[in-house]
Amino acid sequence: MKSDRPVFEARDPGYAARIRESFARQNAMMLIGARLEAVAPGFTEIHLPCTDALTQQHGYIHGGIVGMIADSAAGYAAGSLTDADTGVLTVEYKINLVAPAVGDMLVARGTVIRPGRTLLITRADVFAVRGATWTLCATMQQTIMAIPGKQENAAPRLAQRAG
Amino acid sequence: MKSDRPVFEARDPGYAARIRESFARQNAMMLIGARLEAVAPGFTEIHLPCTDALTQQHGYIHGGIVGMIADSAAGYAAGSLTDADTGVLTVEYKINLVAPAVGDMLVARGTVIRPGRTLLITRADVFAVRGATWTLCATMQQTIMAIPGKQENAAPRLAQRAG
Amino acid sequence: MKSDRPVFEARDPGYAARIRESFARQNAMMLIGARLEAVAPGFTEIHLPCTDALTQQHGYIHGGIVGMIADSAAGYAAGSLTDADTGVLTVEYKINLVAPAVGDMLVARGTVIRPGRTLLITRADVFAVRGATWTLCATMQQTIMAIPGKQENAAPRLAQRAG
Amino acid sequence: MKSDRPVFEARDPGYAARIRESFARQNAMMLIGARLEAVAPGFTEIHLPCTDALTQQHGYIHGGIVGMIADSAAGYAAGSLTDADTGVLTVEYKINLVAPAVGDMLVARGTVIRPGRTLLITRADVFAVRGATWTLCATMQQTIMAIPGKQENAAPRLAQRAG
Repeated sequence: MKSDRPVFEARDPGYAARIRESFARQNAMMLIGARLEAVAPGFTEIHLPCTDALTQQHGYIHGGIVGMIADSAAGYAAGSLTDADTGVLTVEYKINLVAPAVGDMLVARGTVIRPGRTLLITRADVFAVRGATWTLCATMQQTIMAIPGKQENAAPRLAQRAG
Repeated sequence: MKSDRPVFEARDPGYAARIRESFARQNAMMLIGARLEAVAPGFTEIHLPCTDALTQQHGYIHGGIVGMIADSAAGYAAGSLTDADTGVLTVEYKINLVAPAVGDMLVARGTVIRPGRTLLITRADVFAVRGATWTLCATMQQTIMAIPGKQENAAPRLAQRAG
Repeated sequence: MKSDRPVFEARDPGYAARIRESFARQNAMMLIGARLEAVAPGFTEIHLPCTDALTQQHGYIHGGIVGMIADSAAGYAAGSLTDADTGVLTVEYKINLVAPAVGDMLVARGTVIRPGRTLLITRADVFAVRGATWTLCATMQQTIMAIPGKQENAAPRLAQRAG
Repeated sequence: MKSDRPVFEARDPGYAARIRESFARQNAMMLIGARLEAVAPGFTEIHLPCTDALTQQHGYIHGGIVGMIADSAAGYAAGSLTDADTGVLTVEYKINLVAPAVGDMLVARGTVIRPGRTLLITRADVFAVRGATWTLCATMQQTIMAIPGKQENAAPRLAQRAG
C-alpha cells in the first residue's frame, strides 16, 4: 500500500503521564479553560468550551485562541514520540481558519506527519462542535523541534525571575 | 527607487476610533491583558505585559498567545485601510517563533504588505522587551479578507446565542 | 460520524476536460516534464519523472520544483469544483519538505479541504517513488481564490505582449 | 533604537565563492534560466528573465517558479552565514503571491531574519520588473536547517544513482 498513515510507537513508556504533567504546566491553557482529553502515540486531543471571554469582534472565538489549542495539540502529539528527557519547542505553524469558530466547544486534534529526530512535522484540525454537529473550523501545519535535555520548570520561569 | 515601502492613506477618516472600538470588543485581548497602543494607516501596535498566566511548560509566553497578538496587530493594520462599513477576517497566518518570548512585555507590530480590495497581505513582528532590550521573538505573515457590510456585534454572538 | 472527509460533487460536468486543457496551457509543467495523471472532483494527481535537470546542489529534486507540482495539483483540485467560467489563482501556499525528494518519480496529490465560494482551502502531499516504495517527501497547505469570468489565454500572455 | 535590522558578518571568508559554486550546481536554476546576481552576508539576489516556457494557464509566471527563486534566494542568504563545511536544507516555506508575476524579469531578494545555529529564519521578496517599474509580486517566509558536514555533490546524485 502506498500512502498509509504510519503506525507510531512511543519510545518513552511513560509518555502519557509526561505529556499530561507538561500540559498542566501550561498556564495559558488553564487561562482559556482548555483540557487535554486524549493522549496516544503521535496524537492528542484538546477540548475548549466556548465562552464569551474568548471572542473576537464578531463574537467568534478569536483566531489566535484557535491557534493556541492547535499549537498545543500538535506540539504534544510530537512530544508523545520523543525520549523521556527531551522537550519540544514550536519552530513555526501555519493555520487556515476555514469557518467561524463558534459553538459549544472547540476540539483540536493534533497528529504527527513525520517524526524526525530533530524536527517533527505535525498537523492539527480544529472542529467547532454544536450538539452532534462537528464543523472543521481550522487546519494547521507545524514544525516542532526536539531538544534533548530540555527541562521543564517546576515553577514557571516568569515567577522565578520575579523572585 | 525600487522597493520603497508604500505610503498608506486611510479611506475612512474615522479609522482610528473604529479600530479602537473593535479592539475593545475582542474579549480575548482583555482576557490576556493586551492593549492597543498605536493605530496608523496600515499599522497597529499591541502591548502585552508578561504574566505567569500566559506561560507554556518552559515558563515562556505560550506560542499561541504570541500568535494571538500578532494576528490581532496585523489584522487591525489591514482593518485601518478598509471602508468604514467593511469588516476583516483572518484567512490564515504563518508564524515563526524565533526566540523565547520572555521579558517584561511583548510588543506586536502589524503592517500591511499589500492592500488588495478583497485580500490584504500583512505581516507582524513580535518583540520581547526587557528594560531597554528588544529581541525579535516572532515574525508572522498573514492573509486577511475584507468583507463589505460585515457588522460587528454590539453584544457578543456567544452571549446572544445563549439568550 | 464526526470528521469524515466530505464527498465532493463537481458543479461543471465538463470539469475534467477543462482541467486537462488548463494544465496543457501551463508551459512550466511541460518544461519540467510533469504530467496530469488523474482528475476527480476535488482531487488531482501529478507525476514528475526525476531527472538531473531538476536537481538542487545536493542532487535532490529542487524544493521549488516540489512546490510547483504541489501548487498545481492542489490548485487544480480546487479548480475541479468551480463553475465552468471560473478561474483559480493561488493566494498562498506553505510547504514542509520532510524527506529528500529523490527517486524514480515524484507523485503530487492535491485535495480540497474546504471549498468556499471565494476561497478554497486545499492540501497536497508529494511522494518520492522508487520502485514499490513511496516516501512522503513534502506536504503543503494552500489558499486558492476563485475568480468568476477569469479567462485563460489561448495564446500565453507573455507571447502576446511580445507581439 | 529598537528594531534595527541586524548587521551580519560571514564566518566563512570564502562565503561568496562557495555560494556561487553551490548555485551553479542547482540544475533546476539553469533549467529555468535563473542567475545569481548578488551575494552578501545574509543576502542574495536572483534574477529570472520572463519567458513563455515558465508560464501557467493565465500567461503569468507559474507560482511554483516564483517559489523556486524565492526558496533559493533565501536559502542561499542563510548559506552565506554558515561555516564553510556546513550545508543548508529547506525545512519549509510559506509564500504569498500578491500580484501577477508578469514583466521582463523577476528579481528575488533573500534575507536572513534570524541566524540560529541549527535553524535560520529567512525571508524573500520577489519583484516583477517591467522597465523602471518594480512591483512586489510575492513575499515568502522560510525555515532553513544548517547541517554541519553536509557535502554537496560534484556530480549530481541522480546521475550517480543511474551509473
